[in-house]
Amino acid sequence: MAESQSQSQNKHGKLYVVGIGPGSVEYLTIHARDVIQNSDYVIGNGTYLDQIESLLNGQEIIRSSMGKEVDRASRAVELAQSSVVSMVSGGDANIYGMAGLVLEVAENAKQDVEVEIVPGVTAITASASILGSPIVNDFAVISLSDLLTPWDMIEKRLDSAASTDFVISLYNPKSRKRNSNFARAIEIIKQYRDGSVPVGLVKNALRDEKQDYIVTTLDNVLDYEDWVDMRTTVLVGNSESRIWSQSGSDRIITPRGYHRKYEY
Amino acid sequence: MAESQSQSQNKHGKLYVVGIGPGSVEYLTIHARDVIQNSDYVIGNGTYLDQIESLLNGQEIIRSSMGKEVDRASRAVELAQSSVVSMVSGGDANIYGMAGLVLEVAENAKQDVEVEIVPGVTAITASASILGSPIVNDFAVISLSDLLTPWDMIEKRLDSAASTDFVISLYNPKSRKRNSNFARAIEIIKQYRDGSVPVGLVKNALRDEKQDYIVTTLDNVLDYEDWVDMRTTVLVGNSESRIWSQSGSDRIITPRGYHRKYEY
Repeated sequence: MAESQSQSQNKHGKLYVVGIGPGSVEYLTIHARDVIQNSDYVIGNGTYLDQIESLLNGQEIIRSSMGKEVDRASRAVELAQSSVVSMVSGGDANIYGMAGLVLEVAENAKQDVEVEIVPGVTAITASASILGSPIVNDFAVISLSDLLTPWDMIEKRLDSAASTDFVISLYNPKSRKRNSNFARAIEIIKQYRDGSVPVGLVKNALRDEKQDYIVTTLDNVLDYEDWVDMRTTVLVGNSESRIWSQSGSDRIITPRGYHRKYEY
Repeated sequence: MAESQSQSQNKHGKLYVVGIGPGSVEYLTIHARDVIQNSDYVIGNGTYLDQIESLLNGQEIIRSSMGKEVDRASRAVELAQSSVVSMVSGGDANIYGMAGLVLEVAENAKQDVEVEIVPGVTAITASASILGSPIVNDFAVISLSDLLTPWDMIEKRLDSAASTDFVISLYNPKSRKRNSNFARAIEIIKQYRDGSVPVGLVKNALRDEKQDYIVTTLDNVLDYEDWVDMRTTVLVGNSESRIWSQSGSDRIITPRGYHRKYEY
């Protein structure tokens, strides 16, 4: 029924690039859920399709795999000439997501496809919400994967973000090929920031029982190096961040600066 | 009904700090919607409460105003001793949101209140989704408001982010007191980045008919200086970003780097 309804409304097709948030269906936006439910085709890699399984009911499903992003984008652009297509992207569609590649492929294909990017909750804010309030102030987001960005540039970005006291979020802290990237990144940040600065490590943020996290400090974070994997989100506080222990669990608070203006 | 149900389930109360996304109710997460609907109290400033008006049906509503953030947080912590309270925050609860202040107040109050931070779609990714794919790569987020951060530090952050080719998102580009902050920020970025680099300006992202945006370049953005206000989100591309004109509308594409690895 979803199919006939959406096809009659969209004779020329439409391509949605849908950020599905961190994991559980309840962290999709209402709009993202509706778009997926009313699509003719839903395309994505298996991990993301599994996360939204409860929304798949009658749509044609196309499973792709990691490393096949270009093929997946081309297929989606082609299908969207005449059908309503949802390309699902973990977290937000922009942040290290599929939006860019889809628009690049659409641009090159010179096909006049209508594309709507549907934003979602990113791994950064999902992880931050579990840790407390680590990123209420200026922050920088850096992927440690040197598959698509030269490692030299990554080091420069780490250096500049650390030297001007940005809260720093690291994506892809580990890869199979370069296992040392994470330790090197911490080493660079420690050149500028005190060892007591809090660090949060989050795995599978808001993915039901799979979620796990650690609150530690720059001095101690490498004790957890083996715990960190490709999909861990790392949040390093700024010079004012602190750890708040409440009822046996630790959270990270980065002050916004109200304490300089108000008493409470 | 919402009240009696949630009170019976939560004898000790609970405080949710809820990111309500960029504007329309359909961009709330399903979880955020459910939390608000099942609260005894909903607290927030008028703008945000108006955005979620369709979800307010029986809860006690407490309207606060801008500049009263500390009072609002104290009140919420107090009420959450025995009631279920949603403190609403525009966009995400962390990013320049209320999560930090609420945890700071809870910490100082030394009251054992249970706090859950509920993440939402930020103005950054909402604006990015309208512009296309400006932030698929490493990015830095900087508020130009010097109310809570010294201007000198803001300039240093602009300089370091611009010099290492981060995509840059600017919050609070204008204030009543310092109208020149935006022009100064663009001047700093232009020291490192070509004048042809795309810049997107977005007002009221995903807020129904209020939404408006401009795609321009570093060379031309100050032509729109009067258009920019306190609530405009600014996105400055990196050295590889480009403008894609399709069917008369312009979008910003920042390549992720696949073009260095694949042909398409």
